[in-house]
Amino acid sequence: MASPSEGSGDALLPDFPRGPLHAYRARASFSWKELALFLEGEDVLHFKKTIFSALENDPLFAPPRGGDLSMEKYRELNFLRCRRVFEYDFLPVEDMLRSPLKVLVLIHCLGAYDWSLVSKFMLHVLIFGSTIYHSGSERHFKYMPKIFGMEIFGCFALTELSHGTNTKAIRTTAHYDPATEEFIIHSPDFEAAKFWVGNMGKTATHAVVFAQLHTPGGGCHGLHSFIVQIRDPKTLLPVPGVMVGDIGRKLGQNGLDNGFAMFHKVRIPRQDLLNRIGDVTPEGTYVTPFKDDRQRFAASLGSLSTGRVSIMSMSVVNLKLAICIALRFSATRRQFGPTDEEEIPVLEYQVQQWRLLPYLAAAYALDHFSTWLFLDLVELQQGLLVKDPSARQAELGREIHALASAGKPLASWTAQQGIQECREACGGHGYLAMNRLGDLRNDNDPNCTYEGDNNVLLQQTSSYLLSLLARRAQGGARCESPLKSVDFLEAYPDILGRRFEVPSLEDYLDSSVPLAAYEWLVCYLLQESDRKLNQEKRSGSSDFEARNNCQVYYCRSLALAFLELTVLRRFHEYTHQPGVPPPLRAVLGRLSALYGLWSLSRHTALLYRGGYFSGEQAGKMMENAILDLCSQLKDDAVALVDVIAPPDFVLDSPIGRADGELYKNLWTAVLQESKVLERASWWPEFSANKPVIGSWKSKL
Amino acid sequence: MASPSEGSGDALLPDFPRGPLHAYRARASFSWKELALFLEGEDVLHFKKTIFSALENDPLFAPPRGGDLSMEKYRELNFLRCRRVFEYDFLPVEDMLRSPLKVLVLIHCLGAYDWSLVSKFMLHVLIFGSTIYHSGSERHFKYMPKIFGMEIFGCFALTELSHGTNTKAIRTTAHYDPATEEFIIHSPDFEAAKFWVGNMGKTATHAVVFAQLHTPGGGCHGLHSFIVQIRDPKTLLPVPGVMVGDIGRKLGQNGLDNGFAMFHKVRIPRQDLLNRIGDVTPEGTYVTPFKDDRQRFAASLGSLSTGRVSIMSMSVVNLKLAICIALRFSATRRQFGPTDEEEIPVLEYQVQQWRLLPYLAAAYALDHFSTWLFLDLVELQQGLLVKDPSARQAELGREIHALASAGKPLASWTAQQGIQECREACGGHGYLAMNRLGDLRNDNDPNCTYEGDNNVLLQQTSSYLLSLLARRAQGGARCESPLKSVDFLEAYPDILGRRFEVPSLEDYLDSSVPLAAYEWLVCYLLQESDRKLNQEKRSGSSDFEARNNCQVYYCRSLALAFLELTVLRRFHEYTHQPGVPPPLRAVLGRLSALYGLWSLSRHTALLYRGGYFSGEQAGKMMENAILDLCSQLKDDAVALVDVIAPPDFVLDSPIGRADGELYKNLWTAVLQESKVLERASWWPEFSANKPVIGSWKSKL
Repeated sequence: MASPSEGSGDALLPDFPRGPLHAYRARASFSWKELALFLEGEDVLHFKKTIFSALENDPLFAPPRGGDLSMEKYRELNFLRCRRVFEYDFLPVEDMLRSPLKVLVLIHCLGAYDWSLVSKFMLHVLIFGSTIYHSGSERHFKYMPKIFGMEIFGCFALTELSHGTNTKAIRTTAHYDPATEEFIIHSPDFEAAKFWVGNMGKTATHAVVFAQLHTPGGGCHGLHSFIVQIRDPKTLLPVPGVMVGDIGRKLGQNGLDNGFAMFHKVRIPRQDLLNRIGDVTPEGTYVTPFKDDRQRFAASLGSLSTGRVSIMSMSVVNLKLAICIALRFSATRRQFGPTDEEEIPVLEYQVQQWRLLPYLAAAYALDHFSTWLFLDLVELQQGLLVKDPSARQAELGREIHALASAGKPLASWTAQQGIQECREACGGHGYLAMNRLGDLRNDNDPNCTYEGDNNVLLQQTSSYLLSLLARRAQGGARCESPLKSVDFLEAYPDILGRRFEVPSLEDYLDSSVPLAAYEWLVCYLLQESDRKLNQEKRSGSSDFEARNNCQVYYCRSLALAFLELTVLRRFHEYTHQPGVPPPLRAVLGRLSALYGLWSLSRHTALLYRGGYFSGEQAGKMMENAILDLCSQLKDDAVALVDVIAPPDFVLDSPIGRADGELYKNLWTAVLQESKVLERASWWPEFSANKPVIGSWKSKL
Repeated sequence: MASPSEGSGDALLPDFPRGPLHAYRARASFSWKELALFLEGEDVLHFKKTIFSALENDPLFAPPRGGDLSMEKYRELNFLRCRRVFEYDFLPVEDMLRSPLKVLVLIHCLGAYDWSLVSKFMLHVLIFGSTIYHSGSERHFKYMPKIFGMEIFGCFALTELSHGTNTKAIRTTAHYDPATEEFIIHSPDFEAAKFWVGNMGKTATHAVVFAQLHTPGGGCHGLHSFIVQIRDPKTLLPVPGVMVGDIGRKLGQNGLDNGFAMFHKVRIPRQDLLNRIGDVTPEGTYVTPFKDDRQRFAASLGSLSTGRVSIMSMSVVNLKLAICIALRFSATRRQFGPTDEEEIPVLEYQVQQWRLLPYLAAAYALDHFSTWLFLDLVELQQGLLVKDPSARQAELGREIHALASAGKPLASWTAQQGIQECREACGGHGYLAMNRLGDLRNDNDPNCTYEGDNNVLLQQTSSYLLSLLARRAQGGARCESPLKSVDFLEAYPDILGRRFEVPSLEDYLDSSVPLAAYEWLVCYLLQESDRKLNQEKRSGSSDFEARNNCQVYYCRSLALAFLELTVLRRFHEYTHQPGVPPPLRAVLGRLSALYGLWSLSRHTALLYRGGYFSGEQAGKMMENAILDLCSQLKDDAVALVDVIAPPDFVLDSPIGRADGELYKNLWTAVLQESKVLERASWWPEFSANKPVIGSWKSKL
C-alpha cells in the first residue's frame, strides 16, 4: 500500500534493507515516509541528504570519528574536517537568510556525525563571528571576510579559572591609555586566566576577550568585549605577552581544543573594543547609549537566548540518536521467553517499553518545541537588527529568554537521563564504546553546565513567572505574551480551583488530560513559590537569601513544570491540528499523550498534596494509561525511529544499524578493530617475568 | 580540644594541611578522627594506610592512572601493577581467614586507586580461582598454586555474544567422548562466541568456560563449567582451535582487556569438568548429587550473591570518592554573594546542599549496609563449606540472595546518579577529565548491567517477598528471617492500617519517622503487587506474561523500597545504639534521618495515594525536614568527607585535594600536562593550507 506522498519520497527516503527489523516495520500503523515528509518537508529532507551523502562519500570523514585516536590525532582530523566544511560551503549566506531553519539543520547533521566538529565550526563562525558582528560596529566588519575565509580562527573568551556562571565577577582588565590610543589587556593573576575557552587550546589566532573596562579618571565601566590577537596566523605561535595553552582531556568532545590564556599587559588598538554597548573616545571618555548597567545587561539577553536554544536542540539530537540505537537493539535482541525454546525481543517486555518509549515521545515533543522556539528566536533577532522599538518586541525578548532558560535545562537533562537509560537498556553491548552510547552521553554532558548551570538558569524562568503574577496582582494587567505561553495564567484563580475528574481510560489516552493537569500544577507551584518568597522576606531574609531559599521544591520545580507544560501544549496543538494527515493522527496523538503523562507522573505527589488528585484511582489510572500507551506504541517504535534516524554511516553504531543484523554487525565491527587477534606487545612481561609472591612485602 | 581517641589516632590519621577548607573544618560539630576510629577501628585504618602508602611510594603507581594513555600502554601498566600487587602480598591467605573484612578493604583501596586494576586482579584470583575452588573438587586443587603464583592467568567465560542475562540459553557445547575420555568444547557459530570476558582479550591463558554438557546417549545435562586452556603461557599465543581476541574500547575500565573466544572442537581432559554439581564417569555416564535442575541451580545461588555484594560495595566506593571531590570543591568554590563584593562558597546555597548532602548520607548508609551484608555472606559461605544442613542456613541463603539482588541495583544506581550530580555540581571543572568524576562515572557504569541487569535482578527480591506473603497466607507461618529484614511483615495487616501523624518538626528530624513510613510503604506495595499478579493471572495471562506485566510500578518498586527500608533500618539501629560515642550521636543521627527522608521523598506520591499521608502538611514538612537537615549538616560536610576520603594521591583530583587550594592545584595540574604550551604538530594545516571556500561544492 503506497500512499501518494510515499511515491514522491522514494528517492529521498529509500526503503530499508530487509532484515530482522522487518517484522516490526510490517506491523507499524503508519508509513514512516509519510511522517518524515510531514514533519520535515521535502526541502529540508533534501538538504539533509546532501550533507549526509557528502560526509559518507568523503574519505576524510571515514571512521574512526575520533574516540579511538590519540587526542593530538583526533584534533588534527577534526581541524581538517572543519576546514572541509568551509570547502563544501553547504549553506551560503544567501541561503541562510532565505531559510534560517537550515542553519539549525546543518548544525544537527554535522553534530549527529560529531559534536567536536560542530563545536569547532560554530565557535569560530557563529559565536566568535556573530559576536563581532552583533556587539561591534562597522569598523569591525573588516574581520568578517577573514573569518569566513579562515585567515584567522576565533574563540570566545569569557569564563575564567575562578569564575563561570557569575560573569559579572570576571577579573580580566582593559585599561585605556590615551597616549597611544590603546587598551591594555591584563590578567591580574592566574585565577583570572581565561579558562575553558573552546578553540583556544591549539587553534585560535584571535579571541573575543571579556574584560572590565577602565578609563583614566573614569573608573570601571563594567564588562566589555575586545578583539585580541593571541597567536600569529603564520606560525600559530603565541604573540608576545600572551601565555596560551590547552586545558587537557575532557569527559567528551575531545576533538575540540579547550584552552586557557593569561594576558600580561597586552596592548590592542582602541578600535578593537566591540562598541555596541559602550565606547571610549580617543581622549579616553566613556560613552554609552544605555542609561545604566542593568539596561546594558538586558540588551544582551537576546544573544544569551541563541546559545540556550541551540543547546536545547543539540541535546535533542543526542537523545534522538541514543533512542534510535536502543530501540533497534531492543527490537532485535532476544532474551528469555514464554518457553525455554522461544526467546522474544526485549522490546516485548513491559519494563523495556516503559524505560525507552517515553524518551522516544520526549524526543519528538522536544524536537518540535526547540525548532519552533528557534524560529521565534529568528523573528526576535530580526527585530533586534532593525531596532524594533515595539512593546511586542520587548515582550517577545523576555518570553523567549524565559523559555530558553528553562528549555536548556529540561532538554539537556532529559537527554542525559535518556541516553543513560538507553545505554543500560542495551546491557553490556551498550557499554562497548563502538556502539556510541558512551560518546553520546559524554558529548551531551556539557550541555547541562555550560552557558549557565542548569539550576541557576531555571531562576530566570521562575522570576519571569513571578513577575507576571506580581504585575497581575498590582494592576490587573492581562497575562498574555507574544507566544502565548503564559496566557493561561489569565485564569489563574479559576485553574487553582479545578479538580481532577477521573476520565475513562480512553479519554486518559489523550494529551488534553495531562495538559489540564499541568495548568493546575503550574498555577499551584506559582502560588506556593510566591507565598514562600513572601514568607522568607517577612521573616527577615535579605532578597539574596530569600531567593536562594525558595529554589528547592518551589521556584526550581515551577520553572521545569512550566516548560514541560509549554512543550506539551505545543506538541498537543501540533498533533491535533486539522492539517495532520489522517493516517498519522493516531500515532502522533499517542506520542503526545505519552510525553505528557510520563512527564506529569513525576509530579504526582504534588497533584495529590495540592488536592488536584484524590483517591487511589487518579494515580493508578495514570500509570495504566502510560503502560497502555507504551504497549500501543511498541509496534510503531521501529518505524518512529526510522523517521528520525540518520543514515547508518552517521549513526555509527553496529547495534543500531537499519538492517537490524545486530550480531553480524557487531561481530564484523569487532573483527575490524586494530590488532584484535594479535598478542599484546608486552607479552613477555607475563611469560618471562614471573613475580615472586611477597617479594615486595618488606617495603610495606 | 583533643578527645582521648584523637590522641591515639594522630599517627594513623594525621591532621590535614591548613588551607581554605579550614573554615569549615573548624565549624564541624565533631572530631573526624573520632568518627573514623569509631566506624573502621584501628586495625582496618592501619591496613588501609599500609596499602595506600605502598602505592604512593611506588613509582609504578605514579600518575597517570591510565585514562590519558593509549589503550595498549594502559593495559601494560595495569598488568604490571597487578603483578606488583602479587609481589606486595598485602593479605596472605591466613590473614584473609582471620579477618575476611580485609578482603573487602583491600578491594576498596585498590579500587579507589583504579578499578581496572582490581577487576584484573579479582577476575583472576577471586572469580577464576574461587570458581575452581568452589565448583570443582580435590582434583582441581592443583591449579591453585599456579593461580597464586601467576603461572597461569584466568578468566570467567559465561556470557556469549547473543546471551547474557539469560544464562540458561548459553549455546557453547561440551560433548563427552568416552573413547579418549575428553570433552569437546565447541562454539556452534559466532553468536555463541564467549563475549565480554574480562582478562580474555589479551592476558588469560585459561578460562572457566560454561557450556551445555552432552553425554553419548544421555542427551543434554544443562550448563556446566570447564577449565579450558586458551593461550600458551610461554608465548601468550592462542592454542589450536581457539580464536581469541579483544572486544575493543569500552566506556570505562580500559585497563582491563575484555575479550571473546570461539572454540572449534577443542578437546580437554575429562577431569577438567568442574564437578561439584555433576560429573561424568570415564564411560560417559552423567552423575549428580542433585535431584533436578532447579535444585542444582539453587545450589549456585550463594556464589551469585558474592558478585552482587561485591558490586554493591564497589559502587559505594565510587559514590564516596565522587562526593568527596564535589563537597571539597563546593566548600572552596565561591560564586555570587549577598553583595557584588562578597562571594560565598557554593556549599552555602540551599540548592547545592540539596543536590549533594543526601548523596553523602547515602554513601554512609549504603557503606554500612554493604559491609554488614558482606560479613553475613561470609557466615553463609562458611556454612556452605561445612555443608551446614540447617533450615537457618537455607533461609540465610535465600535472604542474602534477596538482599543482594536488590542491593546491587540500589547501590549502583545511587552511585550512578550521585556521581552525575557531583559532576554537574562542579560545573565545567567537573567536566575536566583530570578531576576524575568522568572516570568514576564510566568505571561505575558496568555495575548497573553486569552480573544481571538491575531490572531483572529486582525480580528476585520481589519474588522472595511475595513468596513470604503467600506462605503466611497459606499456613500462617511466621515471617522471620535470620537477618530479621522481613520480621516486620509479621505485623503486615496492622501496618497497612497505620496512618501518618504529622510530628513536630523536631521529631521529623529523626530516622524513626521515615522508618515507620517505609514499613507502611513496603506493605502497601506488597499488597498491591500481590493483587496485581493475581488479577493478571485471573485475566488469563500465562505465568510468564503475568510476571512481566507486574514489574513496572509494582514488583520493581516493591523490591527497591524494601531494600531502602532495610538499609535505613540497619543504619538507624547502628546510629542509635548505645555504643555510639556521645559527640558523634547528633551528626550520625542526622545522616540517618536525611538518607531516610530523602529516599522516602521519591515515594511521596504513593504515600498520598495509599492514604498514609493526607493533607498538605505531611508532604511539606517532609521537604522542610530534608532542607533543615541539609542546612544542619553543611558545616559538618567537610569533616564527614575527611572521614571517608582516601589520601590525595589516591583520590587524584586537583579540585578535591585535602588542602582545599582549588585553583592552585588545578592550575598546577594543567601546566603539568604534556605539550600544554606547545603548538600542535599539525599547525601548517592552518597556516599554510588555506581552504578555498566552496571549492568542494561541486561534489555535493
